[in-house]
Amino acid sequence: MNWLELDRTYCWHPFTQAHTAAPAINMVRGQGSYLFDENGRPYLDAISSWWVNLHGHAHPVIAQAIADQAHQLEHVMFAGITHPPAIILAQQLIARAPKPLQYVFYTDNGSTAVEVALKMACQYWRNQGSTRTRFLAFDGAYHGDTFGAMATGKSSGFYTPFTDWLFEVDFLPYPATWDGHHPESIEKQALDALDVYLNTYGNTLVAFILEPLVQGASGMRMARPHFLRKAIARVQAQGIPVIFDEVMTGFGRTGSFFAAEQIGLTPDILCLSKGLTAGFLPMGAAIAQPHIYEAFLDNDIGKALLHGHSYMANPLGCAAASASLQVFDQEATLTRIQTLIQIQRSLLNTLAHHPAIRHTRQCGTITAFDITTNDSTYNASAGLWLREKMRERNILLRPLGNTVYLLPPYCITDAELHSIYQHLQEVLDQWSTSSTITTSTDLF
Amino acid sequence: MNWLELDRTYCWHPFTQAHTAAPAINMVRGQGSYLFDENGRPYLDAISSWWVNLHGHAHPVIAQAIADQAHQLEHVMFAGITHPPAIILAQQLIARAPKPLQYVFYTDNGSTAVEVALKMACQYWRNQGSTRTRFLAFDGAYHGDTFGAMATGKSSGFYTPFTDWLFEVDFLPYPATWDGHHPESIEKQALDALDVYLNTYGNTLVAFILEPLVQGASGMRMARPHFLRKAIARVQAQGIPVIFDEVMTGFGRTGSFFAAEQIGLTPDILCLSKGLTAGFLPMGAAIAQPHIYEAFLDNDIGKALLHGHSYMANPLGCAAASASLQVFDQEATLTRIQTLIQIQRSLLNTLAHHPAIRHTRQCGTITAFDITTNDSTYNASAGLWLREKMRERNILLRPLGNTVYLLPPYCITDAELHSIYQHLQEVLDQWSTSSTITTSTDLF
Repeated sequence: MNWLELDRTYCWHPFTQAHTAAPAINMVRGQGSYLFDENGRPYLDAISSWWVNLHGHAHPVIAQAIADQAHQLEHVMFAGITHPPAIILAQQLIARAPKPLQYVFYTDNGSTAVEVALKMACQYWRNQGSTRTRFLAFDGAYHGDTFGAMATGKSSGFYTPFTDWLFEVDFLPYPATWDGHHPESIEKQALDALDVYLNTYGNTLVAFILEPLVQGASGMRMARPHFLRKAIARVQAQGIPVIFDEVMTGFGRTGSFFAAEQIGLTPDILCLSKGLTAGFLPMGAAIAQPHIYEAFLDNDIGKALLHGHSYMANPLGCAAASASLQVFDQEATLTRIQTLIQIQRSLLNTLAHHPAIRHTRQCGTITAFDITTNDSTYNASAGLWLREKMRERNILLRPLGNTVYLLPPYCITDAELHSIYQHLQEVLDQWSTSSTITTSTDLF
Repeated sequence: MNWLELDRTYCWHPFTQAHTAAPAINMVRGQGSYLFDENGRPYLDAISSWWVNLHGHAHPVIAQAIADQAHQLEHVMFAGITHPPAIILAQQLIARAPKPLQYVFYTDNGSTAVEVALKMACQYWRNQGSTRTRFLAFDGAYHGDTFGAMATGKSSGFYTPFTDWLFEVDFLPYPATWDGHHPESIEKQALDALDVYLNTYGNTLVAFILEPLVQGASGMRMARPHFLRKAIARVQAQGIPVIFDEVMTGFGRTGSFFAAEQIGLTPDILCLSKGLTAGFLPMGAAIAQPHIYEAFLDNDIGKALLHGHSYMANPLGCAAASASLQVFDQEATLTRIQTLIQIQRSLLNTLAHHPAIRHTRQCGTITAFDITTNDSTYNASAGLWLREKMRERNILLRPLGNTVYLLPPYCITDAELHSIYQHLQEVLDQWSTSSTITTSTDLF
């Protein structure tokens, strides 16, 4: 049996309708911006393998840090015990995070980082004798796939089969912006709605959770920092915790190390994952300000956060994450990111005139546009058509419905970026609303 | 600042009341059954670091497999793409799992494996046009800390601050057994309750989830295989999926490779984590029978399981897991496990007569007993007292309330096992109900 037959026999893939999906690509090696399939064919990873990779595949500094740690101390439980890789990483993260964030609660992925943040917020109030029950999120939010995370992203439409089991969450209009479009009226409407909401429900609100600057899964929908600053300030002014889900936006994606810097406000709780280990290992973190942490200190064990995963603060993940921060310094990654932003801006500006696209937008190293089509559903198939055409040209994309985005690893070269946009141009030249569209089979 | 001061400054630990907790131990190295703190002091890890370690700390075969994989292909997204480590591991797991389990959905930890299993069961019915809403679990169950997993363990008392956000789950009496105690009457009562329940609610039941043979977090509560077989058969006879949470019991802990073998029935969905990577890396899996998988096949993308974590099927985790299975063969681990079971049985039988303990029990490599005390709450402090006394003797335990348990890595030697029981004997000799008990500060 060959690899792909074995794959179909035993593996259940995420966000995939196996009945109609195209055959998977069997990747056997990674190096820099490239992945190589079993026949040695290279693919340029233009989306950082679902937004996780930072410095390139199999980066030797990070690989070696993991190898060394695996031979030293692969793992130890994090209850009653600590270890240098966890302590060093926590200190490094706090040095880079907006002040006064201070306490790092490690988890295994982005969904569990969000679940921990939600639980911190719930218990923050319970520990003070309050019985608040409401959560607030933005329309179109995506915060992960576990039941708590799904509840806060219910309006995204991802979770139809599971809505009966999701707790109630309230949603605020999200004023998406793109080149040449400044959604003042929707921003005002959102802020007015927030004022009414806070007047009515503010004293029952547990927390407000958002993806700062860019909503990822719902289509790389970008919001303006000054709008977010106003919304967040209103919530924090009432003493209500604000949770930033920087699972995608963290570690330089938006141009600053964390998106929070551009907003100019510090969340009460910051959720991280994806880029935390530079794309090597599953790990997440929920980082809290002191006033959150201190609400859990008591003689009563019942006031502690009784949450924990077996592999919390896994030393291999911590070692990878610290090595990634070392690479940030060694390779002057934040400087390189500024260059990547300029190059992409120029290339996107040129592409923006193409008649097959609209709504070009950029936030730091992330660029996006929508393919012009009358089919506006998430599951639209123009994106799938483009994905296949780009794959034929050895470039890996994964459009969200009709939204095409680039989110490259920071090691990508100028030439590789130019090549991607050149190929996009050529493929889009072939697009017309009468293009033959394959059956749509995947999303996210 | 020293390590422990830095730890308290930046790290938020799981299941820990930081206000009253004893200082953590700073571990810097692991080898075999031992962990070593910053001063080189060795600790015998008698609980496999929260039940995850199988073959010993920093086992060189597994460490090297991770190192090699990190330099080859550290990670690639698992949507539209596959890779040999994921395929090989899936094939190996299916070769060891009870038939006809076949489709492996990878996740990042035990909680998310359970969440995926719950979602599979929900959507299994939705995809067939049914709107079932009820879940059934056992009293005292613990299935993880995310909101869906918490709901199915609500009766455990772990989740008091979060109950307002947990969906409804029904609970069945759990007939715990121990040496010399055969709970026929409670077993009959549970089966009668199940019959009534299925008659009343069977046609609205989504799934029944359980920890087979041993409930872990609620105190190593063991149930008899033939009782579980009867209960499971009743549910499956109505076509209702049964989910085995073998996050703790998998990979030889109960004497067979999976606990399911001793029950003699195959779950519709099997959840794995902890021992999956032999204690090296966070990884989980929900493995489904074909009739579950096939209910998701359709031309409609909406009938696919729209769930996925970024690091799903992480090649490093897969490499560790396959290396662990290789060690099982090379070191004849399953044979060694049978010897460990015999040695522990003999040592536990001797200890059983100690007046300070009761309810000795064993399931495979797991042994447990309760310290005699009038304080029956989970958060009782006799266990904490014993933990500190054993720690002074360089042995790591973490009692669950007054329940003391051993769950050693399989590389433990006969002499090390004898030593643990000898120390237990000596420490228990000091116990009386008037012993000075430190403030209880941790649990789980």
